Amino acid sequence: MLKLHGFAVSNYYNMVKLALLEKGVPFEEVLFFGGQSPEALKRSPHGKVPVLETEHGFLSETSLILDYIEQTQPGKKLLPEGVFAQAKVHEQAKEIELYIELPARALYPEAFFGGRVDPAIKEKAKAELLAGLATLKRNGKFAPYVAGEQMTIADMLFCFSVDLAYAVGKKVLEMDVLEDFPQAKALLEHFKQNPNVQKIAVDKEAQMPAFQEMVRTGKR
Amino acid sequence: MLKLHGFAVSNYYNMVKLALLEKGVPFEEVLFFGGQSPEALKRSPHGKVPVLETEHGFLSETSLILDYIEQTQPGKKLLPEGVFAQAKVHEQAKEIELYIELPARALYPEAFFGGRVDPAIKEKAKAELLAGLATLKRNGKFAPYVAGEQMTIADMLFCFSVDLAYAVGKKVLEMDVLEDFPQAKALLEHFKQNPNVQKIAVDKEAQMPAFQEMVRTGKR
Repeated sequence: MLKLHGFAVSNYYNMVKLALLEKGVPFEEVLFFGGQSPEALKRSPHGKVPVLETEHGFLSETSLILDYIEQTQPGKKLLPEGVFAQAKVHEQAKEIELYIELPARALYPEAFFGGRVDPAIKEKAKAELLAGLATLKRNGKFAPYVAGEQMTIADMLFCFSVDLAYAVGKKVLEMDVLEDFPQAKALLEHFKQNPNVQKIAVDKEAQMPAFQEMVRTGKR
Repeated sequence: MLKLHGFAVSNYYNMVKLALLEKGVPFEEVLFFGGQSPEALKRSPHGKVPVLETEHGFLSETSLILDYIEQTQPGKKLLPEGVFAQAKVHEQAKEIELYIELPARALYPEAFFGGRVDPAIKEKAKAELLAGLATLKRNGKFAPYVAGEQMTIADMLFCFSVDLAYAVGKKVLEMDVLEDFPQAKALLEHFKQNPNVQKIAVDKEAQMPAFQEMVRTGKR
């Protein structure tokens, strides 16, 4: 059986978890916080969460894990038919990761962990994040899903990146970054009604105290 | 025929160009500097270079373009057999992109364009870059190529990211970021003997004055 290593507070972990739940693929969850210990680096070359443990070995990087699951597992399809159409979904997913998730992540320390972000980094992240949201607005279909009527891998990225980008905007940038992007707000609301997303949210809340304690003490 | 939109100074453009040349796939080069004009955004949702123009439409994001070419074009294989082995190559390529190319890129303005990078951004980029190189050292095979004996997509990322990371280290960080990584230095030297890499270097040099003038005047 596939094993998903990571922790329920990680948004990348939850992207893969949602894909597995949506496809109905059985999997085991293994608590893993990543990090730079020799043991962690054996599972993930960069010490990252999540890691998928397969019969062939460990695999890191969410976008590749999602694609690997899609290529090897049965259940609901999260990619359309055809190489070009699939590439366009991967393009949307990657644009969300690089141009929304990554700049928002630079602001997580101040938004969620009681830290302060240097003003130069904040300014850079803000400009990148707004540009990334503009790109998603241009390239996404939102009918209601990112790539159209079918839920795809791009929605896994969307569901657990754009929610945090919105929170970061409110908390750190003091603005509604989705003000001109009602389609994105509607899709976030849509996902809040999804039973698998609800389960993931419950698991995240349950783990939050232990996670915050770990962040506070710096112990993984 | 495939059309590759971009410019010869762009390292991402050259990753795709090298893949096409190595596979022996005919293609046409279309000069395109990206940017945020309506015309540019029709070709690329984020205004990025390169763009692959196919019979089905435009495709952005180098890693997806490389995979699309691999899946649809004949010629030398740049991925191994087997879904898991392919995923591991994509993992290496992505680690180079996220943890080496991106932090090094944050320093390009000071390294190559006469600008200054804020010290906070410089410090963050340095820590990320060194961690990324450590990851590549752990996860790469270098026999002599990144993933082993076969040249793969991961080498396209390597060839045009690690060279610039090395230059950025010398110019901005005043250090040899490959000091403890002789395998990487050897592979860079290996690629310098590759005729296709040499052709790409010649094209880049030829375009450099026009590119620098464009950067200087801010005109795309």
